[in-house]
Amino acid sequence: MPVAQNIKVAVDAVVFGYTSKEGLSVLLIKRNIEPFKNSWALPGGLVADHESLEEAIQRELREETGVNITYLEQLYSFGQPGRDPRNRVISITYYGLVKPDAFVVEAATDASDVAWFNIKKLPALAFDHTTIISVARERLKSKMLYQPVGFELLEEKFPFSELEKLYLAVLDRPIDRRNFKKKITKYGFLEETTEKQALEGAGRPGNLFRFNEEKYYQLQKEGISFEI
Amino acid sequence: MPVAQNIKVAVDAVVFGYTSKEGLSVLLIKRNIEPFKNSWALPGGLVADHESLEEAIQRELREETGVNITYLEQLYSFGQPGRDPRNRVISITYYGLVKPDAFVVEAATDASDVAWFNIKKLPALAFDHTTIISVARERLKSKMLYQPVGFELLEEKFPFSELEKLYLAVLDRPIDRRNFKKKITKYGFLEETTEKQALEGAGRPGNLFRFNEEKYYQLQKEGISFEI
Repeated sequence: MPVAQNIKVAVDAVVFGYTSKEGLSVLLIKRNIEPFKNSWALPGGLVADHESLEEAIQRELREETGVNITYLEQLYSFGQPGRDPRNRVISITYYGLVKPDAFVVEAATDASDVAWFNIKKLPALAFDHTTIISVARERLKSKMLYQPVGFELLEEKFPFSELEKLYLAVLDRPIDRRNFKKKITKYGFLEETTEKQALEGAGRPGNLFRFNEEKYYQLQKEGISFEI
Repeated sequence: MPVAQNIKVAVDAVVFGYTSKEGLSVLLIKRNIEPFKNSWALPGGLVADHESLEEAIQRELREETGVNITYLEQLYSFGQPGRDPRNRVISITYYGLVKPDAFVVEAATDASDVAWFNIKKLPALAFDHTTIISVARERLKSKMLYQPVGFELLEEKFPFSELEKLYLAVLDRPIDRRNFKKKITKYGFLEETTEKQALEGAGRPGNLFRFNEEKYYQLQKEGISFEI
């Protein structure tokens, strides 16, 4: 066992948001200190001695972005030597999901800027943050294939097309649109309301949908799996 | 951002092994230093400044157990303040799988003892290692429900009953034994060989099975999922 150790511990978060206008997007901050000063980066920072990892990432998100996170889960720990030019820093990363109202971001105190970027139009990022976003994106994609996803990302009521667009954006591949509704409704976590969609263009307005919370969380807990 | 930080980083591993005689088991070491001297604990230790997290856990497993690991994956990072009585230590944990020949353990250099314990007969453990084992066990269980599991745990060829017993031991609940063979073989990752099982008792010897590596890894990559 090594006698001395010169390693620091940070937490960083990949926060995903979605609206049909903005698409699948990631919340980034502009760094106001070296290294990578003025570069875009994931919100995060060093863990304080007295706080848990979850408290640390919640504090950093509050201080740097002011955004209200509806879902937060540990992603992976990145510890390659050299990933920070100053010192060895291990980053314990989280991924979060937010509702559309989080797209209105206020000026943050601990960063020079904060903004949403579409997942396909990310700027050059500090450290290994591009890699961390790729890992988070894969996690979200695979989560969507064995658990219901959407309750943490969409408005309370939404047109069915909104859920379909969310699946398209996250999976990033064509889906069988003709059968999507049948396939996704058979799991029972979606409910059709009697409220109509407010349509901007022409066409017949469809009913709005919402999630059945009980079935949603039950299926999220159990997942889709081998029948054994 | 905190100016100073007094946190150390460790890696620990939950290594699972299985034989029908021993059942689902975990590899533990007896600590030869304080705190928790002479307590059983997970193999692991502090990360050296120059090594990656994966190199650190492989080194600790080599030094403390001498066991050859066939599969190793990052599990979760545990960072609650107070989990180590000396100093704040964050543990980045891994879980590993080994073949039955790993059940023959040699004397280790960096621990006073090393031994396998059945998952249902674990001793009192140092630190929060009982919690870490629970999390690893849940991960293995859910992995088994959406991916094929067994190639990393069983001998190259095995009687079908051995796979069934492995599923029973990991899932820790009754399974529908009448339909298990039909359900599990339909995924195509199992192959029946023409070799017969060497039977100790009476009864007709069945053919041995092996994994179809190509299909196994394809299904492990894709997983079982929503059809979208």
